[in-house]
Amino acid sequence: MLVLSNNDIERLLSVQDCMDAMAPMYRDYAEGKALLSPRVDNLAPTSLPGAYYAFKHMGGTWPAKGVQALRLNSDVITHPVIVGKMRRQKQPLADGRWVGLVLLFSTETGALLAMFPDGVMQRLRVGAANGLAMRAMARQDAKTLALIGSGWQAGAQLMAALAVRPISQVRVFSSRRENREAFVADACARFAVDIQAVDSTEACVAGADVIMAATSSMVRVIDPAWLQRGMHVSCIKSQEVDGAVFDACDRAIVHSAAQAKQMDNVMPGTPNVSTTPAGGWWREPGREVSSFADLGQLLSGKAVGRQSDAEVTCFVNNVGIGLQFAAAGALVLERARAAGLGHELPDDWFSEDVHP
Amino acid sequence: MLVLSNNDIERLLSVQDCMDAMAPMYRDYAEGKALLSPRVDNLAPTSLPGAYYAFKHMGGTWPAKGVQALRLNSDVITHPVIVGKMRRQKQPLADGRWVGLVLLFSTETGALLAMFPDGVMQRLRVGAANGLAMRAMARQDAKTLALIGSGWQAGAQLMAALAVRPISQVRVFSSRRENREAFVADACARFAVDIQAVDSTEACVAGADVIMAATSSMVRVIDPAWLQRGMHVSCIKSQEVDGAVFDACDRAIVHSAAQAKQMDNVMPGTPNVSTTPAGGWWREPGREVSSFADLGQLLSGKAVGRQSDAEVTCFVNNVGIGLQFAAAGALVLERARAAGLGHELPDDWFSEDVHP
Repeated sequence: MLVLSNNDIERLLSVQDCMDAMAPMYRDYAEGKALLSPRVDNLAPTSLPGAYYAFKHMGGTWPAKGVQALRLNSDVITHPVIVGKMRRQKQPLADGRWVGLVLLFSTETGALLAMFPDGVMQRLRVGAANGLAMRAMARQDAKTLALIGSGWQAGAQLMAALAVRPISQVRVFSSRRENREAFVADACARFAVDIQAVDSTEACVAGADVIMAATSSMVRVIDPAWLQRGMHVSCIKSQEVDGAVFDACDRAIVHSAAQAKQMDNVMPGTPNVSTTPAGGWWREPGREVSSFADLGQLLSGKAVGRQSDAEVTCFVNNVGIGLQFAAAGALVLERARAAGLGHELPDDWFSEDVHP
Repeated sequence: MLVLSNNDIERLLSVQDCMDAMAPMYRDYAEGKALLSPRVDNLAPTSLPGAYYAFKHMGGTWPAKGVQALRLNSDVITHPVIVGKMRRQKQPLADGRWVGLVLLFSTETGALLAMFPDGVMQRLRVGAANGLAMRAMARQDAKTLALIGSGWQAGAQLMAALAVRPISQVRVFSSRRENREAFVADACARFAVDIQAVDSTEACVAGADVIMAATSSMVRVIDPAWLQRGMHVSCIKSQEVDGAVFDACDRAIVHSAAQAKQMDNVMPGTPNVSTTPAGGWWREPGREVSSFADLGQLLSGKAVGRQSDAEVTCFVNNVGIGLQFAAAGALVLERARAAGLGHELPDDWFSEDVHP
């Protein structure tokens, strides 16, 4: 059983690798050859005032690669209001650190093959999903990118956009000046593209070919008035858009229509969970997520992407799926073994000679 | 993060300990102070002919003890017919071993606290659940136990019965003579009670105060014609009884009414899964599992147990719950730390300094 670190995964996996590993998984999933398990969040009281404990897990079975993935997050969460918007903040209470893990199993032997923290892969797979959608949906000649958000996810979104389209100019806006400027300074050092921080959403989106949102906002960040002919809109959570954005688009695809049937399993007395918006555009009649085509259908040709340069297209990464970790995890494990990375633990610590 | 073995758990936990640890959890659960997550099985094709891959997981959150448990099983399964009855057999393909694991997390910090194989705890908690039910439902003076089954689970059922009632005679039947005789030889060495192997179910159950089934049978093993006034019937899976058994009982309690809402998530093309009976008494009108009182209600006084010595009572351990592993796991972890058992791994292998 191989224990890998975020550093190992960063060394072994790029957004491009992640897109390459995930594309056949999405096609298999659309063909009924890969299986999700429902995402479930258990939410319960904890001692920190105003906070709640959240245990989230999602799984995916991909027999073509012989792999079962389980991704889980064990977090103490608060909902502070920052710059006028409610955020969802995970508190690093495990000796100053967070707890998110991926477990990979063999569907051929049952064995636990690997464990690793989820952070680096989590953001690469979000970037890769939006990148795969952008490759199928954005205009071929898209050159200008408006990026809203400057956090951990925004970096992977930028990498994905640069990987799939000839982007030559990037404008970055986020609520806090120091954050967006630090993000841009770092991005400029990595990419040979014109990347600038701007002071307003209007300056960010004016004339953009692609608008990418990558925020932790619980309320809409994309204004439908911004949308122009030929644009592609990309976001990493459902709350970043709303029904009026859809009305302004010609074509919208969600990441997963099936995974949306998730469950919030809330213990009575859990504080603040009720401040999470229970509904949104995805519960409005005619806009139920299950009525949209998803990324698997798009990549397997069961749903169509952009049909003309004039269309306004939209991709909503409404929810992650465990199969992303199966696909990216299988690749990382193969490369880690080849490179001799990670800590090998005795297999018999994680198996047994009795069974129920 | 502490890795424990089945041997450690066997040394640290008895059926009696497990009953003591679990009773307050069941009461908290009945009061809405402990939370299950739904049990989900992902079933998919694998290479072994006629077999399928099964990934099962169930969780439980118990804030009173600050613990979240996740129990998972990763198995390649076949359905052979043995002595005329279809069995469900897990194949030990992980270097000759099986894969079932429990992960324990802190609901206070999120940290992964421990991992261990599920086997020893799994059977102790099944024994403990049936023991707790027997303590509330069997006649106080029950002396004669008929035990049907002689496998791994039967041993824990026997321990539980001996722990809660003044059993002085045990008769054991199972389909294969060599198995029941080996079981009895082992049990006689452990317990100062008259324990005998018998050649037929009739010899086993005649005059018994308690009938316990502990088999892997997919079809009924308890004949309603056996039931006499004052008996208690105990079984470890729903298939061991049927509607006619219930009709012959005055009072029946199931282990979990809520957990029964599990999901079989089956990939198209998975072989033999369809040979699992989809229904049973628990889908018959008026006998839906959700209409029964459960063990938490029984132990918290929300449902009544035996009301007279003449009643025929029945406990069906229809499905396990993840909270059992939270309760027993919290106790084992506390004792393992005190005893210095297990392998300590660096916490920062299982946490991270980034988060999604």
